[in-house]
Amino acid sequence: MNEAARTLPNFRSDNVAPISPEILQAIAEANRGPAASYGDDDCSKLLNRRFSTLFETEVTVFPVATGTAANALSLAACARPYGAIYCHEEAHIHTAEGGATEAFTGGAKLLTLPGRHFRIEPAILREALARTAWGVRNRSQPDAVSITQASEFGTIYSLADIAEISAIARDKNLSVHMDGARFANALARLGCSPADMTWRAGVDILSFGATKNGAMSSDAIVVFDQDLVEPLSYRLRRAGQTWSKMRYASAQLLAYVEDGLYLRLAAKANAVAAHLGAGLAALPDVRLDAPVEANLVFINLPALAITRLAASGLQFARRGQEVIRFVARFDSTEQEADEVIALVERAITTT
Amino acid sequence: MNEAARTLPNFRSDNVAPISPEILQAIAEANRGPAASYGDDDCSKLLNRRFSTLFETEVTVFPVATGTAANALSLAACARPYGAIYCHEEAHIHTAEGGATEAFTGGAKLLTLPGRHFRIEPAILREALARTAWGVRNRSQPDAVSITQASEFGTIYSLADIAEISAIARDKNLSVHMDGARFANALARLGCSPADMTWRAGVDILSFGATKNGAMSSDAIVVFDQDLVEPLSYRLRRAGQTWSKMRYASAQLLAYVEDGLYLRLAAKANAVAAHLGAGLAALPDVRLDAPVEANLVFINLPALAITRLAASGLQFARRGQEVIRFVARFDSTEQEADEVIALVERAITTT
Amino acid sequence: MNEAARTLPNFRSDNVAPISPEILQAIAEANRGPAASYGDDDCSKLLNRRFSTLFETEVTVFPVATGTAANALSLAACARPYGAIYCHEEAHIHTAEGGATEAFTGGAKLLTLPGRHFRIEPAILREALARTAWGVRNRSQPDAVSITQASEFGTIYSLADIAEISAIARDKNLSVHMDGARFANALARLGCSPADMTWRAGVDILSFGATKNGAMSSDAIVVFDQDLVEPLSYRLRRAGQTWSKMRYASAQLLAYVEDGLYLRLAAKANAVAAHLGAGLAALPDVRLDAPVEANLVFINLPALAITRLAASGLQFARRGQEVIRFVARFDSTEQEADEVIALVERAITTT
Amino acid sequence: MNEAARTLPNFRSDNVAPISPEILQAIAEANRGPAASYGDDDCSKLLNRRFSTLFETEVTVFPVATGTAANALSLAACARPYGAIYCHEEAHIHTAEGGATEAFTGGAKLLTLPGRHFRIEPAILREALARTAWGVRNRSQPDAVSITQASEFGTIYSLADIAEISAIARDKNLSVHMDGARFANALARLGCSPADMTWRAGVDILSFGATKNGAMSSDAIVVFDQDLVEPLSYRLRRAGQTWSKMRYASAQLLAYVEDGLYLRLAAKANAVAAHLGAGLAALPDVRLDAPVEANLVFINLPALAITRLAASGLQFARRGQEVIRFVARFDSTEQEADEVIALVERAITTT
Repeated sequence: MNEAARTLPNFRSDNVAPISPEILQAIAEANRGPAASYGDDDCSKLLNRRFSTLFETEVTVFPVATGTAANALSLAACARPYGAIYCHEEAHIHTAEGGATEAFTGGAKLLTLPGRHFRIEPAILREALARTAWGVRNRSQPDAVSITQASEFGTIYSLADIAEISAIARDKNLSVHMDGARFANALARLGCSPADMTWRAGVDILSFGATKNGAMSSDAIVVFDQDLVEPLSYRLRRAGQTWSKMRYASAQLLAYVEDGLYLRLAAKANAVAAHLGAGLAALPDVRLDAPVEANLVFINLPALAITRLAASGLQFARRGQEVIRFVARFDSTEQEADEVIALVERAITTT
Repeated sequence: MNEAARTLPNFRSDNVAPISPEILQAIAEANRGPAASYGDDDCSKLLNRRFSTLFETEVTVFPVATGTAANALSLAACARPYGAIYCHEEAHIHTAEGGATEAFTGGAKLLTLPGRHFRIEPAILREALARTAWGVRNRSQPDAVSITQASEFGTIYSLADIAEISAIARDKNLSVHMDGARFANALARLGCSPADMTWRAGVDILSFGATKNGAMSSDAIVVFDQDLVEPLSYRLRRAGQTWSKMRYASAQLLAYVEDGLYLRLAAKANAVAAHLGAGLAALPDVRLDAPVEANLVFINLPALAITRLAASGLQFARRGQEVIRFVARFDSTEQEADEVIALVERAITTT
Repeated sequence: MNEAARTLPNFRSDNVAPISPEILQAIAEANRGPAASYGDDDCSKLLNRRFSTLFETEVTVFPVATGTAANALSLAACARPYGAIYCHEEAHIHTAEGGATEAFTGGAKLLTLPGRHFRIEPAILREALARTAWGVRNRSQPDAVSITQASEFGTIYSLADIAEISAIARDKNLSVHMDGARFANALARLGCSPADMTWRAGVDILSFGATKNGAMSSDAIVVFDQDLVEPLSYRLRRAGQTWSKMRYASAQLLAYVEDGLYLRLAAKANAVAAHLGAGLAALPDVRLDAPVEANLVFINLPALAITRLAASGLQFARRGQEVIRFVARFDSTEQEADEVIALVERAITTT
Repeated sequence: MNEAARTLPNFRSDNVAPISPEILQAIAEANRGPAASYGDDDCSKLLNRRFSTLFETEVTVFPVATGTAANALSLAACARPYGAIYCHEEAHIHTAEGGATEAFTGGAKLLTLPGRHFRIEPAILREALARTAWGVRNRSQPDAVSITQASEFGTIYSLADIAEISAIARDKNLSVHMDGARFANALARLGCSPADMTWRAGVDILSFGATKNGAMSSDAIVVFDQDLVEPLSYRLRRAGQTWSKMRYASAQLLAYVEDGLYLRLAAKANAVAAHLGAGLAALPDVRLDAPVEANLVFINLPALAITRLAASGLQFARRGQEVIRFVARFDSTEQEADEVIALVERAITTT
C-alpha cells in the first residue's frame, strides 16, 4: 500500500472498521481484577437478561469469535447430518465460509435457491419444498431455511417476506435461521423492533453480527427456540468457541446494544451508503446493481474504469468483470463518500 | 457469591485473570481508523516476523479464540481421520475439551498413556509404539504425540524429556504437538529459550497460550513444520477461527511477547505459586500432590477441611475427594498467598 | 402389488434384476472349506491381477457393498474436507445418495454444473474453474470432478469428452472420478476398451458397477492413481465396507468380467432398451427425452396416460409430471419391450 | 502358504468359514426373476416379521455388510457427536474397527473400562458414571454403553450381568448396545431365548452377527428401541450400507434363523472349542487364559513353542508374546481339534 492509498477513503468492507469508542471503553471497564470464567461473571450473566429485554422474549445469547462460527453452529443445532438447509445461491454460508456449515453439521447439504437481489423468494422456496421427496432415504431431508438480513447484496427482506418464508418453513417443520451479519443495518432501515424482525416473524435462531458494526472480536448467536440451547452449548464448547474470559465478549455485546448504540452506528453507515449510492447513480456510465437498502453499494462500471479506479488507491471490492462493491461503515463520512464519487467520475471520464 | 467471597483471594484458575495493562493498551493503540482485514493489516503482518525472531526460526502464527481451538485444529493438521494421537490420560485434550480433537480431526482416536505427574514417560510411549500394529487396516494409525507444557498438574517436562519423546515420535513419523496453554510458565521455570523448548527439541506445532497469562481473547497456533501451514489455514477459516478484524488479536500477541512481558507475567505467577506451595507444605495434614514447578499448586487435605475452606468463600478448584488446586496468576500477590495459607491452616485446625 | 402386476414386465430399475447364473455359480464354487479373510484368499488375490489385465495397467480393486459407498469413498480419497467436487446438477452423488459424499469427505462441497442430457460440458467446467478463487481461504477449493458414465439419463460421454474434461481437470490438479454404476452399458455402447474409457482418457478412480448388471451384492472401486490406494484402504475399513469373507465378493467380480460376461449382459440390456425406445418413439404423443444410448429410456407422456399406465400394473419409474423412465436389464426381453409398447399405446389412445 | 498348510486345520478365525449350505441354498432360491429393490421385496418384508417373532417383540432389522458397520452405525444412532460411549478397553469397537465409531458418530468418545475377561463389570461402570461431570460443557456426555456378547475373549455375560449393566445405564438415560458378532455362540451357551439375552435384559439395539457363523456377506442391526429406527435408516443409506438388491441379504438372514439353524451352527462351534480347550488344558506348559464359554480358546504357551507351532503350518492367531487364540467354527470338527492338540503337544515337547 503506497502512501496515497493510506489517505484515500477505505470502502472495501465493513470488516476494516475500528472498534467504536464506547465498546473499547466497555472492555476497559470490564477489566477489574479477577472474575469468574466461562460465562459465570457478572457481565455475562447480565447478557441473557439484557438481550431478553431487547428482544421482548426469553433468549439465550452465545458470544462467538466470528460470523462463520455463528452461522455454522446455529445451523448445526438445527440440521441433522443427513439433513439439508435451504439458502440463497449467493448466501455467505454457501459461497464464503469454506464449507463451515457442511463441517459442523457433519455433512448436511446446502440446497441453493435462485432469487432476485440475493433474497429467497417465498414462491421459489414453496415450490422447492413441494418437489421434496420427504421420507425418501436417499434424499437429504430439509431441516432449515437460512436467510440473510441484510443480504450480501445490501438488500432487505420486508417483515412480510420473513413471515411468509417462516410460515412456509414452519409448515414443513423446518427451523428458520437468520444470518444477521448486518442485522443492525437492516433493523435501522426497517425501523421496526428486533422482536418484529426475528421471532415474531418466525425466526428460531439468529447470527447476531456486531463485529462489522463496531465490536472488536465478538459476534453472537441469539437463540429463540429454547430446545436448541443445550445441544448448541456443547457444540460451541467443542468448537473452541466458548471463551474462558467471557466477560470481555459480553461487555462488548452489552455496550453494543446499550442505549441503542448499535442502531446509531448502523444508521450512520446506511446514511453514508445512501449518499454514496445516490451520487454514483447520477454519474453517466454508472448503474446501481441493487437498491441501496443497507450499507452496501454495488455498481456496474466499464472494466477499464474499474482498473483505473483501483490504480488510484481507493479501497473497494471487485465483484465481477464490471461490478464493484463499496461498503460504508459507522465511521465512514459523507465527505469520504463524496471523494469516492469524484474518483469514480474521474475514472469514467478519463477512460 | 456473597460479599465476603468478593474480597477473598481468587485462586480458582488462571482463567479468572484480567487483561494485563500493557495488552489492553496495545488493543487501544491498534484502534486507529480502518485497517485491512483477515490478517492483511500491519499488526498482523508483523506477527510472523516478530515470532520468527522470538523462536529463532521461520514460524507461522495463527491467532485463535481459545486453547481448545488451538489444540484441536493443530492436531487436525497432524492426524488423518483414521489416525491416532498419543496423549497423557489426564491431558486437557482428552478430559476437558468436549471431544474437540475427535470432532476436528474427523474422528481420529486419542490413545491415552499413564505417566507420573501427568507427564508422558518416554519409556511408556516407546513401548506403546512398539506394540502398534502398523499398516493394519482395522487399527487406528498413530500420527502424533501431544504433550502439555506445563502439564495440567503444574509439572514441567525437562528439555531432555521433550527431546527424547520427540525422537521416539520422529522415528515413527509422528508429529509432535505441544499444548502450551501455560507455555510461558514453563519457559520461565526452565529459563531456556522458546526455541530450545520447542523446535530444537523436536516440536512441530505449538498451542501458544496467552489468555491465561494476561491476554484478553486470543491464543495462537505457532507452526514450525511449514507443511502444516496451508491445510491448517483452511481448517481455521472453516472452523470460524479466523477473525476478520485480526489486528486486535495480533496486537495482543505482539504486546504479550514485547520485551519479554509474557515471561515477567509468568514468573510472577510462578513465584506466588512457589510461595503458596511452600507455605502450604509446611502445614500439618497438608501434602503437596506434585512438585510446584509452574503456577499450579495441588494439595491433599482432609475432606472436612475442604468443605470448611469452601464455606469460607475462598475461590479454589476441587479436583477429587481430598484434592484441591490453587492457581496463581500474574496479578496474584504474596499477600494473597499468605491469606490462603492462613485460611487453609484455620480450616485444618478447626476440623 | 396385485396378481396382474406380477406377470407384467418390470422396467422400474436395473436394481430389480436377479443374479446372473454365472455369478451365482461362482459364489457356489468359492464356497469350499475355510479361506483366509479380508482379501488374503486366492480369489481376492487374483482380483487385482485379473482387473489389471482387463484395464491394461496396474489397478487396485476394492469390492464394496453399494454404489453409494463406491462413489462417496472414492471421492473421500480425492477431496480434502475443505475441498470441493464438481458434478452435474443431476448427478446421483448429489441427488440420490443422502449426502454420502459430504459425510465421508468430512464436509466437502459438491459444486453442481448444468449441462445437456445430464452430462458435464467441458466449456462449462472450464468456465467454472476460471471463476474459482484459488487459494482464497474462505472458498472451498476444487479437488475433483465426478462424471457419470453412462449418465443418470442414459446418455454416454464420448471418449473425446472424457479426455477433454480430464485434461481441464488435470490442468488444475483435480482428480477425475467416474461413477460407473452403468459402466458396462457405456462400454458396450462405445465398443472401446475399459482402458480407453478410463485411465487413457484421464480417469483416476472408478466406481465400477456390477450389481445393476448381474452381480448379487458387490460393486467395486477400481483405483488407477496408486497414491489413492493406501488412504482409501483405511477409509474403507472404518466405513465398514471391507468384508471379512471377501472371497464371495471377489468371486462375483471375477465371474462378472470372465470372458466378457459383463459386456454380454450389458449389450443385452442396451439392445432391449434400444428396441423399446424405437417402438415408443414411433407412438403418437410420445417423445423421447434423451437419445437411448445405454439401457435407460426416458419419455414424455401426457400425465393422464401415465396415471393409466401405472394403473395397469406395469412397473416403471416416474421422473416428473409428464416424464417416465424405463430401465432394461440383462434379463429383459424384446417381447417384454413389445408388451410395454403396447401398454403405452393403449394408455395414450384410451385417454 | 505351502501345501502342508493347506491340509492342516484352520483355527485362525471364524471369518475363514464358508457359507453354510442352507444359506447358500436360500440365496439361490431368492434368485427368481425381478424383485423390488431396497427392501420392498417379499423376502425383506418378511424379515421384520420373522425377527419380531424370534425376539418376541416388535423389532426392526437392517441388514448391513459388516459387523463394523453394524456396531458403528448402531452407536451413531445412540450417541450425540459430543457424547461418549462406555466400552471395555479390549472391545472390538475400540481396538479393531479403525475408528469407525468415532467416524460415524461425528467424533463421540469411547470411554474404556477395565474388567476381568474382557467383560465390563457393573461396579466399575457404576463408579465411572458416579464420577461423570454431567452437564459440564467441556466433558463428553455419556450416551451409551456397549457390551460384547460373547466377548472378544470368548467369555459370556450372564443374564444377570446384562440386566445389571442395563439398569445402571438406564438410570442415567444411557442406551445399551450389544455387539453380537458372536451372538449365536453366546445364546447357544446360555440356552436362553433371544429376548432374554437382549431387550428383556435392557438392550436397546443389537449388532446381530451372522457372517462368522455361516452367512455369506450379511450381518444385521436389530433395533428394539423404535425411536432409533428412523434416524438409523437415513444413516445407513448415506453410509452406503443399504443394498439395492436387499433380497439376497434378507434371504441369508431368514435362512440363518429358520428352524434354529443359527443355534445349531453355533452349538457345533462351541462344542469343538470346548473339546479343544479341554484337550489343550490337559497339556503340560499350557494354560487357558480364559474359561472357554463360546467358540474361542486362548492359551498361554512358551514363545518358542508358538514359533514352532506357526512353522508347522497350523492356522491360529497370535495375541501376545505367549498368547495364542484358536477359533472353532460351525464347520470345524473334533478330529481337527484333536489334530491341533497333537500339534501343540509336539511343539511343546520338542522345545
